[in-house]
Amino acid sequence: MQSFELLSQKFILQFDKAHFPPQPVSLYGPNEYFLKMGGKRIRPVLCLMGNELVNEINPDAWHVANAIELFHNFTLIHDDIMDKAPLRRGNETLHAKYGESTAILAGDVMLVAAYDYLNKIDSLYLHQILHLFNHTAKEVCEGQQTDMDFEKKENVSFGEYMHMIGQKTSVLLAASLKMGTILGGAGERNQNLLFEFGKKLGLAFQVQDDYLDAFGDPGKFGKQVGGDILANKKTFLLIHALEVASASEKKELLTLLKTNPANKVEKVLQVFRDCKVDVWALQLKNKFLEEALTDLEDIAVISKRKEPLTELAHFLISREF
Amino acid sequence: MQSFELLSQKFILQFDKAHFPPQPVSLYGPNEYFLKMGGKRIRPVLCLMGNELVNEINPDAWHVANAIELFHNFTLIHDDIMDKAPLRRGNETLHAKYGESTAILAGDVMLVAAYDYLNKIDSLYLHQILHLFNHTAKEVCEGQQTDMDFEKKENVSFGEYMHMIGQKTSVLLAASLKMGTILGGAGERNQNLLFEFGKKLGLAFQVQDDYLDAFGDPGKFGKQVGGDILANKKTFLLIHALEVASASEKKELLTLLKTNPANKVEKVLQVFRDCKVDVWALQLKNKFLEEALTDLEDIAVISKRKEPLTELAHFLISREF
Repeated sequence: MQSFELLSQKFILQFDKAHFPPQPVSLYGPNEYFLKMGGKRIRPVLCLMGNELVNEINPDAWHVANAIELFHNFTLIHDDIMDKAPLRRGNETLHAKYGESTAILAGDVMLVAAYDYLNKIDSLYLHQILHLFNHTAKEVCEGQQTDMDFEKKENVSFGEYMHMIGQKTSVLLAASLKMGTILGGAGERNQNLLFEFGKKLGLAFQVQDDYLDAFGDPGKFGKQVGGDILANKKTFLLIHALEVASASEKKELLTLLKTNPANKVEKVLQVFRDCKVDVWALQLKNKFLEEALTDLEDIAVISKRKEPLTELAHFLISREF
Repeated sequence: MQSFELLSQKFILQFDKAHFPPQPVSLYGPNEYFLKMGGKRIRPVLCLMGNELVNEINPDAWHVANAIELFHNFTLIHDDIMDKAPLRRGNETLHAKYGESTAILAGDVMLVAAYDYLNKIDSLYLHQILHLFNHTAKEVCEGQQTDMDFEKKENVSFGEYMHMIGQKTSVLLAASLKMGTILGGAGERNQNLLFEFGKKLGLAFQVQDDYLDAFGDPGKFGKQVGGDILANKKTFLLIHALEVASASEKKELLTLLKTNPANKVEKVLQVFRDCKVDVWALQLKNKFLEEALTDLEDIAVISKRKEPLTELAHFLISREF
């Protein structure tokens, strides 16, 4: 079995090619531009790792990994339009550079290209992989819509938020791993345990993301610390704070959200600290991580094969950037 | 074999059901709303007719027909955003009613649902149908992008316009027919001849569309006559007129396009008539129709089985609405 780093290098090398024909350049040029921005390519590598957990890598896993990465980029292109985001990884977003209509179409054709990669795999697995892929794609869309709905909703419970994050973020990580196990010929029990591992890992990852946005080290964290607070974004931290705050703290928090004073980030962070949201978040993250690792341990495969995934889990969750 | 009308009734009956789960209603409600607007459902019925040309209807053809209709509706939802269209068939467009972000997502998930229907078919045909479906989907996106590019381009040749219409409109009609023949077990030659029939029929259909928009009977034509002229839309008529007009007629036409006078439609139509564009368009339509019928005749199937398609071709091309 290979480490995340090694498989990641191999994937990136293999993925670094034109995925679209040259013409019409007005449609495919934007897509190649977007893919060239790069990214961590976590999801396709998870597919390869899921495969290697149980078997030698099936050549079809590379096709599925490509499909997963194109799907992920399709969601980013369309999400950027919805979020009216001007930048991604320091580059202009596709709609900012080429206009919204082209961004809609470029995303559409990126999704179709993902299905083209899926169609390269052996008939033996095609129905099953397509089923999981479609199911996942629908959940990701549902999660994105629910996230948008939350913006207009005053009260979002912890359970509702976790469900949304599960759909918008975790499910694709989990399904990427599961597709790998399917192509590796794993049994259903092992497939499902690795899916659960991915889902919990995704939740831990999101808690970490929300935590870093509020309490990260500005020197290490790539983005502006407090961005979520400034944007009144629902996060694990805010939702929990509103649930555990005293009446006066809750009132202060809601006033800060409404009035947007100059020292908003500092003041909100003070309430978070008073409510011990920072400590709680680290505990929650560790709880999800432990649950994920328990699922991984439960998989009926010698523990040596699990090492790369265990390492990756610890790495993803301890990152400070 | 059954007539277009009969198959159409059967398809509409079968298609009249919920295609999405009830939740989240903020995402799937809009999709059900859009599908309930109705439509002629020509493309899915072409799939059934392509199947019946060569064989009894394969139950999988209904799944593929559903996929085709969902795909077509996905393109309509996204095209309406790009065209900033407020209305479709007298109803509010999806983005006008529910906002652009939801319309993007609703279209996305409609496309995924199309692939879900495709995934219901037998493994025997799945690779081949997916291949044709993906190829067609990419061409439709390319055609839409090229159409948008034309808006900013001063000179569009007849050949360029025909290629764009081929991608944006004809290819889906042709592919719908071809998918039917594949599921009916036809040989490659018959498949390709019916594809060509569909492609030519699509071109004839578009010529008719462009003709009716300019010269249609306002009492019979559902839309405002002259809409394309008012919007300076590139059409078979305008492109041909610019190619055959005398220097002075061309100058007049270009001035009318630029200055948008109150009597623009009337004036442009006068130039069209002076250039005999109306006569030419009817000849072009008949040329495409004849070519389509020649391809149909060439198919190695007894002529009785071709009757419904022959009838449909004549009907589609002689419509005045």
